[in-house]
Amino acid sequence: MSNKITSRSENFSKWYNDIIINADLAENSGVRGCMVIKPYGFAIWEEMKSLLDQMFKETGHVNAYFPIFIPKSFFSKEASHVDGFAKECAVVTHYRLKNDIDGNIIVDEEAKLEEELIVRPTSETIIWDTYKKWIKSYRDLPLLINQWANVVRWEMRTRLFLRTSEFLWQEGHTAHENKDQAIEETRKILAIYKDFIENNLAIPVVDGLKSSREKFAGAIDTYCVEALMQDGKALQAGTSHFLGQNFAKAFDVKFANRDGKLDYVWASSWGVSTRLIGALVMTHSDDRGLVLPPKLAPFQVVLVPIYHNEREYQELVSAMKKIAIQLRGLNIRVKTDFRDTHKPGWKFAEYEMKGVPIRIAMGPRDLANKTFELVRRDNLEKRTIEIDVIQDVIPNILAEMQSNLFSKANDFKKKNTFKVDDFDDFKAKIDNGGFVLAHWDGTPETEDEIKKITKATIRCIPIDSNHEKGECILTKKPSLKRVFFAKSY
Amino acid sequence: MSNKITSRSENFSKWYNDIIINADLAENSGVRGCMVIKPYGFAIWEEMKSLLDQMFKETGHVNAYFPIFIPKSFFSKEASHVDGFAKECAVVTHYRLKNDIDGNIIVDEEAKLEEELIVRPTSETIIWDTYKKWIKSYRDLPLLINQWANVVRWEMRTRLFLRTSEFLWQEGHTAHENKDQAIEETRKILAIYKDFIENNLAIPVVDGLKSSREKFAGAIDTYCVEALMQDGKALQAGTSHFLGQNFAKAFDVKFANRDGKLDYVWASSWGVSTRLIGALVMTHSDDRGLVLPPKLAPFQVVLVPIYHNEREYQELVSAMKKIAIQLRGLNIRVKTDFRDTHKPGWKFAEYEMKGVPIRIAMGPRDLANKTFELVRRDNLEKRTIEIDVIQDVIPNILAEMQSNLFSKANDFKKKNTFKVDDFDDFKAKIDNGGFVLAHWDGTPETEDEIKKITKATIRCIPIDSNHEKGECILTKKPSLKRVFFAKSY
Repeated sequence: MSNKITSRSENFSKWYNDIIINADLAENSGVRGCMVIKPYGFAIWEEMKSLLDQMFKETGHVNAYFPIFIPKSFFSKEASHVDGFAKECAVVTHYRLKNDIDGNIIVDEEAKLEEELIVRPTSETIIWDTYKKWIKSYRDLPLLINQWANVVRWEMRTRLFLRTSEFLWQEGHTAHENKDQAIEETRKILAIYKDFIENNLAIPVVDGLKSSREKFAGAIDTYCVEALMQDGKALQAGTSHFLGQNFAKAFDVKFANRDGKLDYVWASSWGVSTRLIGALVMTHSDDRGLVLPPKLAPFQVVLVPIYHNEREYQELVSAMKKIAIQLRGLNIRVKTDFRDTHKPGWKFAEYEMKGVPIRIAMGPRDLANKTFELVRRDNLEKRTIEIDVIQDVIPNILAEMQSNLFSKANDFKKKNTFKVDDFDDFKAKIDNGGFVLAHWDGTPETEDEIKKITKATIRCIPIDSNHEKGECILTKKPSLKRVFFAKSY
Repeated sequence: MSNKITSRSENFSKWYNDIIINADLAENSGVRGCMVIKPYGFAIWEEMKSLLDQMFKETGHVNAYFPIFIPKSFFSKEASHVDGFAKECAVVTHYRLKNDIDGNIIVDEEAKLEEELIVRPTSETIIWDTYKKWIKSYRDLPLLINQWANVVRWEMRTRLFLRTSEFLWQEGHTAHENKDQAIEETRKILAIYKDFIENNLAIPVVDGLKSSREKFAGAIDTYCVEALMQDGKALQAGTSHFLGQNFAKAFDVKFANRDGKLDYVWASSWGVSTRLIGALVMTHSDDRGLVLPPKLAPFQVVLVPIYHNEREYQELVSAMKKIAIQLRGLNIRVKTDFRDTHKPGWKFAEYEMKGVPIRIAMGPRDLANKTFELVRRDNLEKRTIEIDVIQDVIPNILAEMQSNLFSKANDFKKKNTFKVDDFDDFKAKIDNGGFVLAHWDGTPETEDEIKKITKATIRCIPIDSNHEKGECILTKKPSLKRVFFAKSY
């Protein structure tokens, strides 16, 4: 482990990569564009999965699993979907290798598939092909299914967690008997995402609708949550799509409604991915390493003894094991590092780099005083605490850190959200980073023009905000409300 | 849902398929050889995953994630591995589709990969390519990593859960500083599999070594657990491989050992898959439908009200909700079915088909008597129980069912395991089904000959059994111990 990480001010992008590598979250693999998620990074994903899965289940969703391969023809069935997804993808054309006369392994040309298979970039098509068999009547609805899976989108320029050819995600695919219920589901999931991301990842988000240029290929409306990273760029953290009857029509999925008439099924789909780990890093971490909100930290507390001889070591280990048991009894995730192969200073640096929220160190004098030394990762504050009060102190500090991290990120977001009415000012603000709330005339043409000039896109169109009328920042045409512009990941 | 299922005696294979389909576990998809795991089937897999994952973590293993694609050349690096795995596989050759002049979606020949990618049939090669970067010294060992993933092996004849082109599994890949530790790990995992399968799936297994003909391509030794299905065929339930230094040599993974010298790393790999769901079905289910051991049942208890009018319905629902809360407080997984759209009889048949361990029904008379009717799925026994004692009765019955299912399967296994010394008797017993314990001279040639004549293979070579010397069943040459023969899935 090297502690040399680039500072954010020097090179944000390099800082990001340094954190991912030095905190042991992930690395590039021998396969172009694909990452290896290392155990520490994967443990964060497991915490996310477990929390989000519970939220899905509490709202009536169940998990299932659909094939990784999708026949090429399935994509052609939904016109806009195929343009968005079937282009940059992994194509399976053969199902056998063989030895050539020199003993080399080559593709067996006789084992060519009649129809090519696409490695799923998203599963709407294969799932709606299946739903056709499952849905006959309104009694079969709603169908509320989620899948945890790997997906592949061929990316030319990749960045760990943010954009890789293969990534992990969950994709929900629901079916409903009418439009209102499908929209209600789409919005319910958006609210779950916002709740999950704000209260567990401690990342404040803005939520709303995507413009037609930015929406999901095949959706009527795409809802999204967007977060602001420390470099002032926006990051799409999750999307929830109202699909109307598009996929039901493409795959001919009709049901007998309550009036006994055949109608097409209404749908939603929604997902978040391992990209959230990238958001986590870019929101909270600092120039010393990773900073993790306690709710997602694989270890919330790490215990390190400081000793000079074997007797001290034994006494400290024995005392610290008791503390670990006590904390685990409070459902706190504890790591003890009693390794004799590494010095305390090395361990301190390692756990600082890995963003463990609380570090507890104990030496012989602490033991005699029945105290320990505690360092918080968020503000690096050092305190001496009495062992007796550990049951109150540790949960309180963890809760405080969780809420402090959110407040800090929220302050940053507020300070970097600007209402702008002049286009020169707009360009300057966009260039400098942050969310810019500006009026827009509602046309894709204006959106394109603004993007061309400033590289900013509409990140989201607020739904419930006060409708403040105004004039488009570019065209001065009338506008019904301000929308969020930003440069983005 | 249709309750018409073929009986086991009529056609075991059709019975198996009928159960899978009618209990809503899985179905074939629109993609050749790939299945859809439906929510009820997936819930069983989630229970398995959660129990097994905990056992892995308690023994020091951590999860990670490696790429789904493996460059073709990686397979060639371990000679026997490539023969076993790289032949029938999904080959990715292109990374883009495009529209042709008629608007059809076709493969873009300009987007041909320089080197083909294989969709992982197992991950030893990509993982050892990665371990090369992670392992420098004995201090980096042992490395105890597991991955939950989908894998693809192109299968021409597929059967739901038992043999599909894509399936879900876990694959452990560990690295050690010496041979003994690698073998200890291999055996530790075998013991975990046996414990997991016997105590949760309630399936008795025999454990031991595979013969050289049947072992994993690339392993020194393959350990396995084998179970006996109700039709007398054996099913491989899990394997744990001692890989020696084969993959370390193939991928040049050396470490500085405790003497400061460079040595190749020692390895194990091990896995169980969604095939276990097939084993579960074929071990316990009956001609009425699925039978599930309580520990893996998505719902352990289902509550169904029997009523004639709205008042009765309301009273029953209110009483049964209280029972459900009480049971959930005991960590029992409860489903309440208060749907007014289906009659009680229909519901009873449905939950019988789905193998819910305990069905509780209540009518107005039960309510007046403060009792309910309970039916156990394993023996279909019906009892009237007082609500007051529910906290004791239900957990006891669930525990009893769990152990009864194991005893029943174990009795079946014992009754169908035969010691045989005469080859005609051997052929007859094999033909009839069951494990046949017979002497074997230890040569692959004899094993092949026996397989040719009887279709039986050596399922496993016991490790710790008393070494009873004898003569080979076919060649009469000397043999050190009996081995398990059977026809298998």
